[in-house]
Amino acid sequence: MHRIKCTISYDGTMFAGYQVQPDKRTVQSELETALARMHKGQGVKVTASGRTDAGVHAKGQVIHFDTPYTVPVKNWQRGLNSLLPDDIAVVKAEVVEDTFHARFDATAKEYRYFVSRSAQKDPFRKNYMYNFPFPLDLELIKQAISHLLGTHDFTSFCSAKTEVVDKVRTIHEIELYEEGDVLVFRFRGNGFLYNMIRILMGTLLEIGNGKLISSMVPEILQSKDRSAAGRTVPGQGLYLWEVEYKKS
Amino acid sequence: MHRIKCTISYDGTMFAGYQVQPDKRTVQSELETALARMHKGQGVKVTASGRTDAGVHAKGQVIHFDTPYTVPVKNWQRGLNSLLPDDIAVVKAEVVEDTFHARFDATAKEYRYFVSRSAQKDPFRKNYMYNFPFPLDLELIKQAISHLLGTHDFTSFCSAKTEVVDKVRTIHEIELYEEGDVLVFRFRGNGFLYNMIRILMGTLLEIGNGKLISSMVPEILQSKDRSAAGRTVPGQGLYLWEVEYKKS
Repeated sequence: MHRIKCTISYDGTMFAGYQVQPDKRTVQSELETALARMHKGQGVKVTASGRTDAGVHAKGQVIHFDTPYTVPVKNWQRGLNSLLPDDIAVVKAEVVEDTFHARFDATAKEYRYFVSRSAQKDPFRKNYMYNFPFPLDLELIKQAISHLLGTHDFTSFCSAKTEVVDKVRTIHEIELYEEGDVLVFRFRGNGFLYNMIRILMGTLLEIGNGKLISSMVPEILQSKDRSAAGRTVPGQGLYLWEVEYKKS
Repeated sequence: MHRIKCTISYDGTMFAGYQVQPDKRTVQSELETALARMHKGQGVKVTASGRTDAGVHAKGQVIHFDTPYTVPVKNWQRGLNSLLPDDIAVVKAEVVEDTFHARFDATAKEYRYFVSRSAQKDPFRKNYMYNFPFPLDLELIKQAISHLLGTHDFTSFCSAKTEVVDKVRTIHEIELYEEGDVLVFRFRGNGFLYNMIRILMGTLLEIGNGKLISSMVPEILQSKDRSAAGRTVPGQGLYLWEVEYKKS
């Protein structure tokens, strides 16, 4: 068997998220359907670096699967791209060692969240950004960010629906930059909990808007209480941008 | 009765086109549903500058309707935007004279067509551009454009399905510009026939790609034969950008 690693990109709009769910259109089920067609109907299990929710996009999700076939790796990319629907693309395919694991070997992940600051309703942004046309003090947001960096127990920034026990994560970087009237938040960390970025974003926007105070962030973290943090912003502004692995 | 003119924008992806069709989601039916709600269930007829096909987008479509209500025009925009789905927006609302007509008073229209030159499959462009990763000689396209400008019988560049008899139209301008790896074609004319821009685009791309010769354009026009021109490119790259009216 050969293990293939693929970097994939998808527009999350028309998916009920990454993971297989009965009677729902998901990224994983589309991948497994395409791979089964390439394997004469035989099931091929796909393992991803992690799930993404309904409406959440990916520029650089990583998956792996095993195959008995020996074909040039360019053909995996071409073959999968022709069988996959238009809203999923294989950006890169690589043959990797049998021990490579898309989830367990990930050393860091980067997500970006896009906030439209336009006061005008914009049909072309609705699936790709979160619209927040209200006042924002970016300096207050930057102060709050400084309290979030580093290693913390992020229970307060995690959906209560999670099954994960250890909620300690390390955020390496949160960069904030502007592209015209769009604000982009770039998060890099060793891993993120269920809904963590969307709750971090809701909290940062409430701080920028004066609804919460930036100096309260250490208390919010210490409270280990989801209700202490801000609300969960919508998934459509969120992109899984890149998954990093140890250089082999 | 007061006549209201609205400039609207829509993402055409999820619509079966502009015009009402039985059991289909169309822009016109969404507009008329929202207006009926604002008029206590009473039907309000909406007239547009023209139709757009399934998947075709609009940045500046223009419509008009009549209403017995006297409300500030800002409220029309706000009210309609809150009742309309997220993929249609009213960009501007104006009270106009009773004699204004969105279709008959239009003096010029601008359409833009977006061509992605990327060799990479891109899920985020699939609904918004036409992907053409093949070689293109822009100089040949510009030569062909020079033959299309002005007043011609565009029968060869019109879908055979049209009911329009007079196929003489004037193209004022075709501008070609590059934005990164995206080619944008800007068409301005006094009016365009059914599928005309999509057939012009198919022909221009075939000329740029060496499948047709630019000097053949006058012959294609003279033949008044749809089969002499290039193929019809997909609707998702096309945007109704602006409709011009006489200054009142």
